[in-house]
Amino acid sequence: MIRQKTGNNSFLKEFNQTAILNLIRTHKALSKADLAKLTGLSPTAVGLIASSLMEKGYIHETGTGESKGGRRPVLLELKPRSFYSVGIDVDIDYTGFMMIDIKGDIIAEKLVKTPENYAYERVMEFLENETARLVDEYMVGWEKLLGIGVSVPGLIDSITKELVLAPNLKWKHKDLRADLKRFGNVPVMIENEAMASAICENWLGACQGIDNFVCINVSSGIGAGIFAHGKPYRGAGGSAGELGHIVVDENGPKCGCGNYGCLETLASTVSIAEHFKRIIRQGALSSLNSVEDLGQIDLNLIIKAAANQDVEAKRVLLESARYLGIAISNVVNTLNPSKVILGKEFVRYSDFVLDYIRGVVAGKALEYPASKVEIEASQIGEKASALGAAIIPLKALFSIN
Amino acid sequence: MIRQKTGNNSFLKEFNQTAILNLIRTHKALSKADLAKLTGLSPTAVGLIASSLMEKGYIHETGTGESKGGRRPVLLELKPRSFYSVGIDVDIDYTGFMMIDIKGDIIAEKLVKTPENYAYERVMEFLENETARLVDEYMVGWEKLLGIGVSVPGLIDSITKELVLAPNLKWKHKDLRADLKRFGNVPVMIENEAMASAICENWLGACQGIDNFVCINVSSGIGAGIFAHGKPYRGAGGSAGELGHIVVDENGPKCGCGNYGCLETLASTVSIAEHFKRIIRQGALSSLNSVEDLGQIDLNLIIKAAANQDVEAKRVLLESARYLGIAISNVVNTLNPSKVILGKEFVRYSDFVLDYIRGVVAGKALEYPASKVEIEASQIGEKASALGAAIIPLKALFSIN
Repeated sequence: MIRQKTGNNSFLKEFNQTAILNLIRTHKALSKADLAKLTGLSPTAVGLIASSLMEKGYIHETGTGESKGGRRPVLLELKPRSFYSVGIDVDIDYTGFMMIDIKGDIIAEKLVKTPENYAYERVMEFLENETARLVDEYMVGWEKLLGIGVSVPGLIDSITKELVLAPNLKWKHKDLRADLKRFGNVPVMIENEAMASAICENWLGACQGIDNFVCINVSSGIGAGIFAHGKPYRGAGGSAGELGHIVVDENGPKCGCGNYGCLETLASTVSIAEHFKRIIRQGALSSLNSVEDLGQIDLNLIIKAAANQDVEAKRVLLESARYLGIAISNVVNTLNPSKVILGKEFVRYSDFVLDYIRGVVAGKALEYPASKVEIEASQIGEKASALGAAIIPLKALFSIN
Repeated sequence: MIRQKTGNNSFLKEFNQTAILNLIRTHKALSKADLAKLTGLSPTAVGLIASSLMEKGYIHETGTGESKGGRRPVLLELKPRSFYSVGIDVDIDYTGFMMIDIKGDIIAEKLVKTPENYAYERVMEFLENETARLVDEYMVGWEKLLGIGVSVPGLIDSITKELVLAPNLKWKHKDLRADLKRFGNVPVMIENEAMASAICENWLGACQGIDNFVCINVSSGIGAGIFAHGKPYRGAGGSAGELGHIVVDENGPKCGCGNYGCLETLASTVSIAEHFKRIIRQGALSSLNSVEDLGQIDLNLIIKAAANQDVEAKRVLLESARYLGIAISNVVNTLNPSKVILGKEFVRYSDFVLDYIRGVVAGKALEYPASKVEIEASQIGEKASALGAAIIPLKALFSIN
């Protein structure tokens, strides 16, 4: 791209405006003098841009900063509750709804049971209704809504933005942006749920300012959101990060994808529960032997049992963690990331397995990249995907690229 | 980054100059009118930049283009043999030397036996002497040399550019840029050999204009060069692409890295030869039974035998290819690349295994990313790393980023 010296100033103006908006966001509060210094723009130019941003309602003047001799300067910051964004995380049990303001502060959040069987039209209606309820309850009006981000556990074509496949929802080739009609002119943005988490960690979580990292979400499926060169990495068609289908045991169980021993068959939360039920049926001694209906045994019960020192519960969690460790070792050797963040339901049992996973990676990955990576559980927790989805419309406002 | 409207024009000038140089390179030949149209710059601005580039000797006027009504326009192209670059690919048997000109045309190339045992100081002296010989033989003078790129089979710290480890050369913590002293002011640039191949494929090979691809080099070691978002992806510390140490068989042989069943232990050309010798010792029937000294059996003999329909030779090649296929499936699921290019010694036996590898990936990777990837052997062949190393100084000249 060539930036012209003359002409086309509206592009340059917008470019500088976005840059200033971003500086205010990342520094929380800045004076016009600070902005002039940081951008190299003239004080007059900064003043014009600041006025325009204030007029649009994105920023306001607040308090006064430290004096460096003369008058104490007025500080500019993002104007809280001036604009909003909604994030939706469609998942197989519950769908998360999240409303944030321009600053990224959470205004409201709720978890609602996802309609059973995931009939597509019914789910679309459900998303529209629940979002409308949230917007009506908390907001001044739809015109203050920057956009709606929707996170789904599936493959999204990076060009058409069509949902190619969401195996756990049994959806194929759906265009959610077209089918969520009730939002009118409010832009709808679709994202893979692991990438939504990665966007969240990058915007306000553990991966701020980090160029190369991987967020791995473990729930009924396993997927990863990869950042490369500071940006979401989606690959040729948008399916990068399908770690759930890395083969970690060639002789392992058959996977829904047709292959054998995929990570998902050995480390998803569903497979953890299945594994546990299997060994109980085989006569393993556990505090959960007393549960009459084996069907009731789920991840949460296993975690509770592990917390009560149930040896078998702990063993099953650790075994799944070993496979996660193998897959992470592959990722560390292949991508040499600065961080690997484990999220979604994983955060419920990370205390039991995280150190063990770090040990597996230290033993299996090459020494050099293993020494460069921090492996952590998400501090944001299970809502990272919904929050990340809500951040996507904000990113569009602030994005310089 | 903010581009100022006023002041700092030298930056803008250099930016536009590089952009024009790049357009001339990618279009082979362009008129000033074409350049004005492509850049949006004024004809006067284009004229000034073109004059400056001609004065520096990078471009010249050549022939005339098609007329679009008036006078047939003069075309600008890169001036052949105006500037040069040298690439060196240090490998365990032979070291490749390559001289190219500003257009990327090969001026000279040679393969010289790498000094035995790889004593570091001796190898540095060898690299200096052989490069000096090449430069003296073919060139006008060192001042016409844009730089020297050195490709090594090892991990390079992406910040310090220090060679952290080159296991097959037995080097640790070496600063080649500092130790190649005889080149004076000519810049020396160090690169991992698989990344050098990837740079080569991207600059003039099968991956031109492709943003997301992976070049996997198979020789005594196995490594990959990854491009993400159109740029070399190196990870947090520069070691991204260490595919040789992806575990493809947990019960496999012990690897030099301390782990078991790494791809390198099952699919490197050294491991192919070792595997073949092992089955011969175990009594397998092969046309190579007649070779008296088993130590003489190497990859080339095995390939020759396979070409003569030796069943065991074919089987051993295919078995190594199966492991490559497993690793590539992982890469396809993780990175969703547009292309995977297999290079280095692999090109010698690709005819026997490439289709088989494609089949393994079709069976093991997810359908969607598998449908998006082309798996090919490098058409540039074994010299891609040396050529890529030579391209690095050119890239520095043409690089807009």
